[in-house]
Amino acid sequence: MDTPSSTQQQIEQALLDEVVASFDNTPDPRLRQLMQSLVTHLHSFIRDVRLTEEEWNHAIDFLTRVGHITDDRRQEFVLLSDTLGASMQTIAVNNQAYKDATEATVFGPFFVDDAPRIDLGGDIAGAATGQPAWVEGVVTDTEGNPVPGARIEVWESDEDGFYDVQYDDGRTHGRAHLFTDDQGRYRFWGLTPVPYPIPHDGPVGQMLQAVGRSPLRAAHLHFMVTAEGMRTLVTHIFVEGDPQIEIGDSVFGVKESLIKRFEEHPAGTPTPNGRDVGDRTWTSCRFDIVLAPATNPDTTDTPEEM
Amino acid sequence: MDTPSSTQQQIEQALLDEVVASFDNTPDPRLRQLMQSLVTHLHSFIRDVRLTEEEWNHAIDFLTRVGHITDDRRQEFVLLSDTLGASMQTIAVNNQAYKDATEATVFGPFFVDDAPRIDLGGDIAGAATGQPAWVEGVVTDTEGNPVPGARIEVWESDEDGFYDVQYDDGRTHGRAHLFTDDQGRYRFWGLTPVPYPIPHDGPVGQMLQAVGRSPLRAAHLHFMVTAEGMRTLVTHIFVEGDPQIEIGDSVFGVKESLIKRFEEHPAGTPTPNGRDVGDRTWTSCRFDIVLAPATNPDTTDTPEEM
Repeated sequence: MDTPSSTQQQIEQALLDEVVASFDNTPDPRLRQLMQSLVTHLHSFIRDVRLTEEEWNHAIDFLTRVGHITDDRRQEFVLLSDTLGASMQTIAVNNQAYKDATEATVFGPFFVDDAPRIDLGGDIAGAATGQPAWVEGVVTDTEGNPVPGARIEVWESDEDGFYDVQYDDGRTHGRAHLFTDDQGRYRFWGLTPVPYPIPHDGPVGQMLQAVGRSPLRAAHLHFMVTAEGMRTLVTHIFVEGDPQIEIGDSVFGVKESLIKRFEEHPAGTPTPNGRDVGDRTWTSCRFDIVLAPATNPDTTDTPEEM
Repeated sequence: MDTPSSTQQQIEQALLDEVVASFDNTPDPRLRQLMQSLVTHLHSFIRDVRLTEEEWNHAIDFLTRVGHITDDRRQEFVLLSDTLGASMQTIAVNNQAYKDATEATVFGPFFVDDAPRIDLGGDIAGAATGQPAWVEGVVTDTEGNPVPGARIEVWESDEDGFYDVQYDDGRTHGRAHLFTDDQGRYRFWGLTPVPYPIPHDGPVGQMLQAVGRSPLRAAHLHFMVTAEGMRTLVTHIFVEGDPQIEIGDSVFGVKESLIKRFEEHPAGTPTPNGRDVGDRTWTSCRFDIVLAPATNPDTTDTPEEM
């Protein structure tokens, strides 16, 4: 497209200046900063792409449909933020790289407070079906000191790709919490994670289809680790060899450092804690966790939705 | 706030690169361009302001409320676009400055197809109450040649600040269309425009309040002018001396060139076409209109919502 004339550029810049100035009297300085930055980037987008009026109409219609499908059980704006990478970028900004601390990733919509407690070596799967997976590791600080008594929340889908809360019958499965022992160690039985699609029967799914993207998330197991004086870690582990990692995780959650080997064991192989898994194959995975210090008290809070 | 470390900046940039690349296979090249530019600006915003997770949650909640108040009669996303200046910037981009062509401004939500036709010198107000205003001018091209037979749509609120379509009784008032004569001239009776608020009992109104902005629009009279071979002009005229112009039009529609004098005449002063306006004062306004050529066929279309 042609570069606009300098007169035209001045007109567009003058309009942006006027919009930015309209927020000058915002009493809260942080809100003022947010709004002035937001309109600056929004106007840059419109000017850079030379947005047509038809495209503007389409955007209004798209946002309206996102709003109308959103209810207590379906949050299409979160899906939109996730699929545009905005959620993951917010996570990145708020969980800055610190030495060798384990990287954070998206929280997702399926965390539940008050998941059952299990003992070390217990089973989080419950009635959820899938291939048993033994997961173990140690939680340390960035100096290598073990963190005893760290609270580990874990949650995952069943082999059909559904979390317990996606069923209508109030079941609880595929989630639990446990605590590290006096040497910072943890271990539990879960399920080998499988890929599943984000809800894609709405406008976000239509967007993904229009741009040729898969709605599938790479297979993963969620962790949230909290310990006194430590930055809360919200993350996943991913499954080495999962083809969806190459195709692309629909919410951009994958970090190289979070891809772990789930080693497959033939049926009948003795399990680490003597559990009888019947005539099934099972996997084992090691995930050592390094926590950053809580330099900023805010970062120890549990995020509400992310 | 502190500048992020170079490692942190690399992490954030790598994430953006991954998100941009996820749109590489979009079949429609224009959609690809739009999405890649959108995510680039969106991520720049998040990184520039170091958006917190709490602020992200607030944004999701705000958009959800905007979606839920929107229905067939209330379009809160359009109000949001308007109050962030995005609608006006889109207008600016699509109605590039061309010689002395009359400037465009926002279309607004109150246009109606099939407004009644009036003869030259007729009255658009109908049952709408307010101070009578005589409006006249000539429509020319940018070479100064008159444009005969140009179709002029005009619409405005009554003195209470409401358009006919905002009443529930199906009334039609304060709107009409007319055609220029063989010398490009037009003239009609309307009402002296008054300021009125955009709907502000929803999330956009709360935003305006939080940032200390007025929901009022500067007083204005809407025009849409179409003629063969000419770029369709969607604009308003504003009222010289209206204090809301200084305070700020809530949707950024005001252009210096569109502020016109509505000269006040004492009650009993003879009117230009001999109309008897009783014992009321009345105003008169001259608005000459210059149309750009329709160099791009798209720009002759009637915008649907803007």
